[in-house]
Amino acid sequence: MHGDKSRVIVNGAYGKMGTMACETIKKHPTFELVAGLGSGDDLQTAIKDTKAQIVIELTTAASVYKNSLIIIDNNAHPVIGASGLDANQIKILQDLCAKKNLGGIIAPNFSIGAVLMMSFAASAAKYLGEVEIIEAHHQQKLDAPSGTAIKTAEMILKARTIKKNQLELKEIIPGARGARFEDINIHSIRLPGILARQQVIFGNTGETLNITHDSIDRSSFMPGIILSCERVINLKSLYYGLENLLD
Amino acid sequence: MHGDKSRVIVNGAYGKMGTMACETIKKHPTFELVAGLGSGDDLQTAIKDTKAQIVIELTTAASVYKNSLIIIDNNAHPVIGASGLDANQIKILQDLCAKKNLGGIIAPNFSIGAVLMMSFAASAAKYLGEVEIIEAHHQQKLDAPSGTAIKTAEMILKARTIKKNQLELKEIIPGARGARFEDINIHSIRLPGILARQQVIFGNTGETLNITHDSIDRSSFMPGIILSCERVINLKSLYYGLENLLD
Amino acid sequence: MHGDKSRVIVNGAYGKMGTMACETIKKHPTFELVAGLGSGDDLQTAIKDTKAQIVIELTTAASVYKNSLIIIDNNAHPVIGASGLDANQIKILQDLCAKKNLGGIIAPNFSIGAVLMMSFAASAAKYLGEVEIIEAHHQQKLDAPSGTAIKTAEMILKARTIKKNQLELKEIIPGARGARFEDINIHSIRLPGILARQQVIFGNTGETLNITHDSIDRSSFMPGIILSCERVINLKSLYYGLENLLD
Amino acid sequence: MHGDKSRVIVNGAYGKMGTMACETIKKHPTFELVAGLGSGDDLQTAIKDTKAQIVIELTTAASVYKNSLIIIDNNAHPVIGASGLDANQIKILQDLCAKKNLGGIIAPNFSIGAVLMMSFAASAAKYLGEVEIIEAHHQQKLDAPSGTAIKTAEMILKARTIKKNQLELKEIIPGARGARFEDINIHSIRLPGILARQQVIFGNTGETLNITHDSIDRSSFMPGIILSCERVINLKSLYYGLENLLD
Repeated sequence: MHGDKSRVIVNGAYGKMGTMACETIKKHPTFELVAGLGSGDDLQTAIKDTKAQIVIELTTAASVYKNSLIIIDNNAHPVIGASGLDANQIKILQDLCAKKNLGGIIAPNFSIGAVLMMSFAASAAKYLGEVEIIEAHHQQKLDAPSGTAIKTAEMILKARTIKKNQLELKEIIPGARGARFEDINIHSIRLPGILARQQVIFGNTGETLNITHDSIDRSSFMPGIILSCERVINLKSLYYGLENLLD
Repeated sequence: MHGDKSRVIVNGAYGKMGTMACETIKKHPTFELVAGLGSGDDLQTAIKDTKAQIVIELTTAASVYKNSLIIIDNNAHPVIGASGLDANQIKILQDLCAKKNLGGIIAPNFSIGAVLMMSFAASAAKYLGEVEIIEAHHQQKLDAPSGTAIKTAEMILKARTIKKNQLELKEIIPGARGARFEDINIHSIRLPGILARQQVIFGNTGETLNITHDSIDRSSFMPGIILSCERVINLKSLYYGLENLLD
Repeated sequence: MHGDKSRVIVNGAYGKMGTMACETIKKHPTFELVAGLGSGDDLQTAIKDTKAQIVIELTTAASVYKNSLIIIDNNAHPVIGASGLDANQIKILQDLCAKKNLGGIIAPNFSIGAVLMMSFAASAAKYLGEVEIIEAHHQQKLDAPSGTAIKTAEMILKARTIKKNQLELKEIIPGARGARFEDINIHSIRLPGILARQQVIFGNTGETLNITHDSIDRSSFMPGIILSCERVINLKSLYYGLENLLD
Repeated sequence: MHGDKSRVIVNGAYGKMGTMACETIKKHPTFELVAGLGSGDDLQTAIKDTKAQIVIELTTAASVYKNSLIIIDNNAHPVIGASGLDANQIKILQDLCAKKNLGGIIAPNFSIGAVLMMSFAASAAKYLGEVEIIEAHHQQKLDAPSGTAIKTAEMILKARTIKKNQLELKEIIPGARGARFEDINIHSIRLPGILARQQVIFGNTGETLNITHDSIDRSSFMPGIILSCERVINLKSLYYGLENLLD
């Protein structure tokens, strides 16, 4: 019998991430994939029919908010991976979950490694004031710096208690010292042969500390999705950021 | 007047570390170097004469225990960098400090970067089961693996909750997969042009997380000594390991 | 008209490499894919019918020799990627090509980056005697060290004119210093999240030189296959190793 | 007897590099240090008195040209490490050596590792069009990018035959994509705990090739000075760039 397995719906099952999520849930010993829904399926009906306990929401920015409301309204635990929610929408969803004591997660990034990298960078910033960030991506990513690099800089700035050295820079060629996010320099590489990498380098007297996260495949998001499914069952509210599910 | 400055003795002031520690304390705005002692000086007399509040103990394995007893007996805060204390001696020193509510620190490694690296490795091990360690040192370091690599492995094993994959290895040339400390593989590089490096690589589906500490100069120990001097004044017991002074 | 395009057959078109090779040739402006053959197709008939000028041979170790004979016998330029040829077979194929002044290539590794890495390692070894190799692969690769690591060590040993320091090693845990291929230490990492990486570290007084090749996808072999197809047309003999096609 | 040893003068023997060069020559089995000269010594007299065969010139930008003329005029082999010679002066010195068939070397960088790094970068650029450069230095180096990074970019541009992809960049924060030297992006890191590092990353379909040179100590220049002394004896002209002495 399947009594021990949590029943999971993947919404947005036909995209790259959704296809991979379905395969991952299918193979997992403690979860049962009860439905993989595309844009033509009705989410509310599916939750009711399958008695789904968890819905992994991987649709588009345009539909994520509406779908999240349906998931919560039907008492399923939301595991929301699609970006596109604004701060106000997140607040409304969190309030709804709080009233129901319903556990869930909204994660802009499901990679456990990336979340740990950012968390360690923030911890190190308490003791090491000098830091620069290098991010490298494939050439289809034209925006620079990456959102993850900016978020990392924000977390470092928030955690930092030590003043950074003020250097009297002289850029012989403009841009050499990278982008400045407040006083943190961020450097963006765009090359083929790289999917996504982020490196945070802390410099201190006579030593450096490097924290580097490398992603070579979208499968890197699967362990974070599984961890989320495992945890939301026992949570009583809707968290924003995978780091909140790591102890 | 010097009323605001903490009075510091460096014991073992003529070794490489001691010389550097004296220079560092001299230049620091909130500490005053009241004595730099060699093997011919009397530590107890010096503490009494200078009214030293902190003693940085950097002598040899042979004399560190005896000196530590004198420091505590004379109510100075010990900052003990020399290795060579066994578990029993550490226990005795901690008991003596506890009775006096005297703050102090025994640190096998004063590099803040190295301590953070080990701490992050232990944290990551809660979520990422697959890990290997690479350490690289100059060619005068003949023992392999390094003490720091082994300590890192111990901390990972203690923190780890996930099982590691069991691989059916086939070493075409013996040693290819490195030293095994329980199920953690450790690889030791010995090359000129490197002082001390340690890298912990966590592998996960589609992603890797690298935490690397690099030391190019003994000066890397100075920030940890300063941090210790700043903290011991307000502590009430004797800590073992710099990580305990990081929040 | 297609007169300017070289006519290419991919033999072994339904494997992972073959499928990718077909797509690559199709998209290329100066090549025309005239056939993609599976195990049921007759290679000799296909060459004759299509007037193929080049055959990319990507079948199995069991059939590569027989197929190579057919390609040469029918005056097509062989681009042979499948491993499984022994030294004697290579010699026979080279003699056949030499008699016909027929250009071709047998490449154990079609990655241009990997070939450059090995070539640079050999060049550096003329000046820098101290070197170690670290290779890292996914956990399905159980043999250690990798063939590429061993080949790199061979090339370094052949090029090296300087004696390496003899260290009096003391392995606290056996295997710490890795596999020894003559006096070159090779370290093998096996972790998820890595496809294939190889790093050669040269150490010298006060400096290190790192040459690292990273492959995250089988597509890394395609530029080498294209380069081979471009060059074989103008060659007069059968080369072993892609490095011979790089100037 | 010393008959087999080449007689060497170090000019500028009291600077950091000069002191190290004197020690290095003294310890070397095939060279004899016949004089270490400071600013008060007369170079011409010293060459004549000591019958020096080689002069290592490590003085300042202000005096290097004048000293080089004296060295050549007195038929000693010049090993010129000081920068500060312009193109015209180099030409004059080369012409003088050519007339006398006198071997010598002018090297802006005596690190063998750095020279190999640049040479490999130029070689790789023949096959791999996509490349970026990251250089990292201590915080006292305020100019960015470094001279070595610019020289590497020049060598790559000269060697490159393949067109680079034109990306439609969007810098969310100005400078994110670094300095552009023609179409090569250069990123400059300035952190404590680093002396000098330079990394060249080539990206290709599915693969990257990294060539990284790390210097942690000025002693990294000594092997290049020794190599130069060994080679100039048998040369017949004055070379510019250590790369010309590597085969």
